Amino acid sequence: MNLTTMVGLLAATGTTTAFIPQVLQIIKTQNTKGISLVMYIIFTIGIVFWLSYGILLGDIPIIIANSITLILAITILFLKIKNG
Amino acid sequence: MNLTTMVGLLAATGTTTAFIPQVLQIIKTQNTKGISLVMYIIFTIGIVFWLSYGILLGDIPIIIANSITLILAITILFLKIKNG
Repeated sequence: MNLTTMVGLLAATGTTTAFIPQVLQIIKTQNTKGISLVMYIIFTIGIVFWLSYGILLGDIPIIIANSITLILAITILFLKIKNG
Repeated sequence: MNLTTMVGLLAATGTTTAFIPQVLQIIKTQNTKGISLVMYIIFTIGIVFWLSYGILLGDIPIIIANSITLILAITILFLKIKNG
């Protein structure tokens, strides 16, 4: 694996796994007041486009990374709407 | 411009601009309790890797999108640390 691919994998891992502590914190505290509903609506739509982009390119890493991020973003969006 | 490029641009626009309403909400309410510090630490590191990936590839859209996201993510991280 070359340096560029390694940096890309670290990038995808970072921006995908970052949402896990946010999901866990909401489940633990049920506090979503500071979280922007508009952010997660736009972000989720953006991730759907990234996933479509990956499917159009047939790029497996883009598809996998964005499928995981989509699940996490939808979870945060759902918890935000549920907690008001 | 072909469909794939258009979908990619919509994706990058969505996941970048999504952080603007979050920044504005924090400035307005100063409420960051629900926001995960760990999320924004990992996310910011991930974006630094995406930026490095864009520089290594010489890919201008990746560089531009992630430079903007980096500024927004660092702003949220700064406001989270400032507000405790």
